[in-house]
Amino acid sequence: MDVIVNAAASADGKLSSRRREQLAISGADDFARVDRLRAASDAVVVGVGTVLADDPHLTVKDDDLRSQRREDGRPGNPARVVVDSRGRTPTDAAVLDDEATTYVCLSEAAPVDRRMALADHAELITAGEERVDLLRAFATLQEDGLEQLMVEGGGELIFSLFEAGLVDELRLFVGPKIIGGRDAPTLADGEGFVSEFPTLELAAVDRIDDGVVLTWRVEDR
Amino acid sequence: MDVIVNAAASADGKLSSRRREQLAISGADDFARVDRLRAASDAVVVGVGTVLADDPHLTVKDDDLRSQRREDGRPGNPARVVVDSRGRTPTDAAVLDDEATTYVCLSEAAPVDRRMALADHAELITAGEERVDLLRAFATLQEDGLEQLMVEGGGELIFSLFEAGLVDELRLFVGPKIIGGRDAPTLADGEGFVSEFPTLELAAVDRIDDGVVLTWRVEDR
Repeated sequence: MDVIVNAAASADGKLSSRRREQLAISGADDFARVDRLRAASDAVVVGVGTVLADDPHLTVKDDDLRSQRREDGRPGNPARVVVDSRGRTPTDAAVLDDEATTYVCLSEAAPVDRRMALADHAELITAGEERVDLLRAFATLQEDGLEQLMVEGGGELIFSLFEAGLVDELRLFVGPKIIGGRDAPTLADGEGFVSEFPTLELAAVDRIDDGVVLTWRVEDR
Repeated sequence: MDVIVNAAASADGKLSSRRREQLAISGADDFARVDRLRAASDAVVVGVGTVLADDPHLTVKDDDLRSQRREDGRPGNPARVVVDSRGRTPTDAAVLDDEATTYVCLSEAAPVDRRMALADHAELITAGEERVDLLRAFATLQEDGLEQLMVEGGGELIFSLFEAGLVDELRLFVGPKIIGGRDAPTLADGEGFVSEFPTLELAAVDRIDDGVVLTWRVEDR
């Protein structure tokens, strides 16, 4: 399994403002890059916070890329995966529509009524007591044939994935804006590390739109 | 007056961990770059939070650079400036030693006993009621002949400077680490912007040590 985290951040490392409204940090060239990465993935993964804040669709936008996937004998869109310990994904969320297969990863703490509501719209994976056990959930995805995973945020999920040692690569567009705010979401939130910080190796630096894409490989711990 | 903000952040935009302990994010080549930038500056500016957390000296480390400054008829070290609304800088702080002139910028809210204690160690500038009025304080520095200012943090001061429209350039070393943490200090903290975000122009991208230095020019608002 190969897990790539992809995100766009301001020059000061924020994914959005403290109001958590979606902001255009990158431009058309970076959107196209992200679309190609989605098309190359078996599944696109987000945390429930991102679903609640942005209601993303997570499908491939370019018709040719979808057609190419079908010609290769794959579904037009990659699967979608929502990490959602308590089953808070709304049943009318865009990620639950019929455009792609969707998995919702729950913990044992997800209420039965939420499970029942979501079971009509998604494949449910339960792993972990209070919070999703990401190692077990991702192992289940791998058993279902999902090898190439792209993670699109948010900062809580991304931190948890680094904490679990599950990230292989980080592709970060750094954009020409200052967002600021001690309460604004960053690329990696959560509790944070205080020692044994994950270390990276800079694999590529590419100027694109008015910013730069930094490709970091995660070193083994 | 030209104001350059210089900082080192992790790949996820943090200046240090949630414990606010100083971390080595960059390496020897970046330290040398920062030292050259200090030597080219009339003053080095920090917020009191940085003084309390790190007790930095803010002097030029390289003997040759200091000698060169003296040959040019300048003091060996640039002046040091602490932005300190309430006069919390300890009188035994390293920035208050005799190696360079030091200015402490206070607000009217700084207690008289702190003013008296600091007056023995630094030039005091008072501007603003509850918080330092940065525009007025920097105008006073300029009247004292300080034209080239380098700001070394922390995130609260940097945000306030962007808010006041005082930043001309941002030089950010992005290093090969994930720090994480929703409470860890970032490059620009404070309240944060929710609209009219300062916009930047990417002037240079330089790989150095195991990371990259992004040089951003701040566009006029």
